[in-house]
Amino acid sequence: MWTKTRLTERLSITYPLIQAPMAGGATTPELVAAVADSGGLGALAAGYLPPEQIQRDIQAIRQRTDRPFAVNLFIPEPVDITGGDPDAVEQSNRLLHAYRSELGLQSPPTVTRIAQPFDEQMAAVLEAQVPVFSFTFGILPAEWVEKLHAVGTVLMGTATTVSEAVALEQAGIDMVVAQGSEAGGHRGTFLEPVENSLTGTLALVPQIVDAVQVPVIASGGIMDGRGVVAVLALGAAGAQMGTAFLACPESGINATYRAALLEENAEVTVLTRAFSGKHARGIRNRFITEVQPYEDSLPPYPIQNALTRDVRQAAAEKDRADCMSLWAGQGRQLISDKPASVLVADVVTQVEMIVAGLGGRT
Amino acid sequence: MWTKTRLTERLSITYPLIQAPMAGGATTPELVAAVADSGGLGALAAGYLPPEQIQRDIQAIRQRTDRPFAVNLFIPEPVDITGGDPDAVEQSNRLLHAYRSELGLQSPPTVTRIAQPFDEQMAAVLEAQVPVFSFTFGILPAEWVEKLHAVGTVLMGTATTVSEAVALEQAGIDMVVAQGSEAGGHRGTFLEPVENSLTGTLALVPQIVDAVQVPVIASGGIMDGRGVVAVLALGAAGAQMGTAFLACPESGINATYRAALLEENAEVTVLTRAFSGKHARGIRNRFITEVQPYEDSLPPYPIQNALTRDVRQAAAEKDRADCMSLWAGQGRQLISDKPASVLVADVVTQVEMIVAGLGGRT
Repeated sequence: MWTKTRLTERLSITYPLIQAPMAGGATTPELVAAVADSGGLGALAAGYLPPEQIQRDIQAIRQRTDRPFAVNLFIPEPVDITGGDPDAVEQSNRLLHAYRSELGLQSPPTVTRIAQPFDEQMAAVLEAQVPVFSFTFGILPAEWVEKLHAVGTVLMGTATTVSEAVALEQAGIDMVVAQGSEAGGHRGTFLEPVENSLTGTLALVPQIVDAVQVPVIASGGIMDGRGVVAVLALGAAGAQMGTAFLACPESGINATYRAALLEENAEVTVLTRAFSGKHARGIRNRFITEVQPYEDSLPPYPIQNALTRDVRQAAAEKDRADCMSLWAGQGRQLISDKPASVLVADVVTQVEMIVAGLGGRT
Repeated sequence: MWTKTRLTERLSITYPLIQAPMAGGATTPELVAAVADSGGLGALAAGYLPPEQIQRDIQAIRQRTDRPFAVNLFIPEPVDITGGDPDAVEQSNRLLHAYRSELGLQSPPTVTRIAQPFDEQMAAVLEAQVPVFSFTFGILPAEWVEKLHAVGTVLMGTATTVSEAVALEQAGIDMVVAQGSEAGGHRGTFLEPVENSLTGTLALVPQIVDAVQVPVIASGGIMDGRGVVAVLALGAAGAQMGTAFLACPESGINATYRAALLEENAEVTVLTRAFSGKHARGIRNRFITEVQPYEDSLPPYPIQNALTRDVRQAAAEKDRADCMSLWAGQGRQLISDKPASVLVADVVTQVEMIVAGLGGRT
C-alpha cells in the first residue's frame, strides 16, 4: 500500500506527506496543526525565530494537535558574522540605497542582529522534545544529534546531492530530504558549489535512494497527488510539499505574496542570491532582475539577508511585490488556496485514483 | 493498466516507452529496431544526416523490424546561415585555435556546410511514410504537417514550457514531448529565452498535461522503471528515455564517450552553448569550462556547431574526452550498458513491481 512507507511507520503518521518548513512566517502553528490533524507531518520553520518564539509556537501547535510534527532550523554557516568583507557590504548598501529611498527607509539601516543564536534555538527544540527535528544548510553537530536522539527526536537533514545525502547518513541522521532543483526557497546545498547541486527531483531521488540506507523524502515540484505517486515510485518514503501549502488560508504569508502566488500569468521562478546571499528560488521580480548583474559580489548569507531585511519588510508593509522575496517552486502554476485539510484530503483521493489506474483497477 | 495509454493505443506499441532521438550517431538502425522489437518506440535522430543517409537508415530499420518507429529532425532556426556576425565567428575561431593546434588541425577550417537542407530531409521522411515523425527546436511548418498527416504519419513536437506545448497543439501536432531540465543534449526551447525553460520534469509534465488535450510524453531524467512509473503518475502517456539507451551496445557512440558515461565519478552535467551555439546538457569537461567565460558572445546555432565540428571530430578520433561533446542527462549516474532489449525488459519488470507495490499487492 502506498500509505505504508518507512516514513509513516517510523513517525506513526497516516500519509507519507510532509508540509515543508518555509521560513518567513508561512508555517504558522495553525498550518502545522492542520496538516498534522489531516494525517501528514506539519513542520514549523523556525530558522528566523528567536528561541522564545520557538517555545511559544511549539506550545501553540501542541494546544491544537496531539499528532507528530517537525521543527526546522538552519545550520549556521562558517561565515564571519561580524560583517565579513566591508567592501561587499558597502557595495550592497549602495545597491539597496535606491530601494530604501523609494520605500522611505533610512540608509544604511541599523542591523542589530545578523542571525538568531543557533545554540539557544537548539536548546528550545531539545527542551520541547519535539517528535521530529529537521534542518538545512549543513549537518547538525554531533553533540546535538546525540542529545536529540536521547529524548527520542527523529532527525531529518536536507541534501541536494548524493554526496550530501551520504554525509548526512554518516552523521547519524535518521532520514534525508532530497531537495530537487524545482524546490522553492533556499537551496540546502552545503558541500558543493550550488551549480553542481541543481538536479531535478525526478533524477535526484533515485540516485539518493540507491546511495543511502535511511528513508528518503522527496521535495521539489510536488504539488498534488500526481507528484506524490511519482516520488513514491522513485523510491522515496515520503513527499514533502512546500509551495502547495503556501497559499492555504492557514499560511502566514501576507496578501501581496499570496496574490503573486495565485496570479495565473506570474513570471517564472529563478534562483537568486539577491535577497539573502544564498541561492533561493522565487518568482522573478524587479528586485531580482535589477540586482542580478551584481549577484557574484554580494555578501554571503546571512549577511546579505540581514542587509535586505528592512527593504523586504517595508516592501511587504507597502504591498510592493516588486521588492519582496516571493519564494516559490517550479510547480507554482498548480497552486491552490484550499484549506490545508482539504488539500491533504484531495491529494489522498488523487493518489488512490492514480494507483488504482496504474494497476488496472479503474 | 500502465501499458494502456494514449501512446500505446495510437501507435500500436506494447509499452509506453520511447527511445529518445539522440543526434550525433547514437541512434543506429540497430538500436532503433532493437527498441521497436522489444515493444517500445525506437527513434532515428536524423537532424545531422543528409537526405540520402536518412533514406538508407530508414530502409535499414525496416529490414530489421516491422514494428513502428520514429524519425526526428531539427526545425531550422531563423538565423543568418551565411555566417552571421563576422566578429562573433572570428572570436569563436580565435577561441578554437588552441584546441585545433593541439589536435593537429588547420585553423580556421573550411566549413563546407552549416546545416543539412531541411526540405530535402523532410522529403525523404515523407517519401518513406514513416509511422512517427518527431521534431525539436520549433514548430513543423503547416505544409509539412498536412503532407505527413496525409500519409498517416503521427507527429510529435518537443516543448520545454507550457506555452510551447500549447503552440504545438495549435499547430495540429498529435503529441507533445515535454522536455524537463534534466534532459541531456540540446534544449528544444523555441519560444522563450532558455533561462525561462528550465523546469524540472516532475514540475513540468503535470503543467503541460493540464494545458493541452493531446497526449504528453515525458522526457528528462528517466533512467529506469522508477522514472517510468513516476511520469505515468504525473499524467504522461509515455516516457522517453535518452541517456538510458546511450551506452547500450547498439548505440553508435564511440568508446571514449561510452567510457565517460559509465565512469562512476564523472563530473556533473551542465548546460553549455560552447559546442553548438545552442544550450545543451553534457558532462562538464575542459572545453566547456574554458569556453564558459565567452558563452554569451558565441555565434548562434547552427553556426557555432559548424565551427566546432572539426574539433569535436578530431577529439573523438584521438580519444580526447576533454574536447568532445559528452551529452548526458542528470540521471547519468543510473546508466547501464545492457543491450537495449534487456534494458526494456528490465524496465518493464521494475514497473510491474512498483505498480504492484503501490497498490498493496507485493
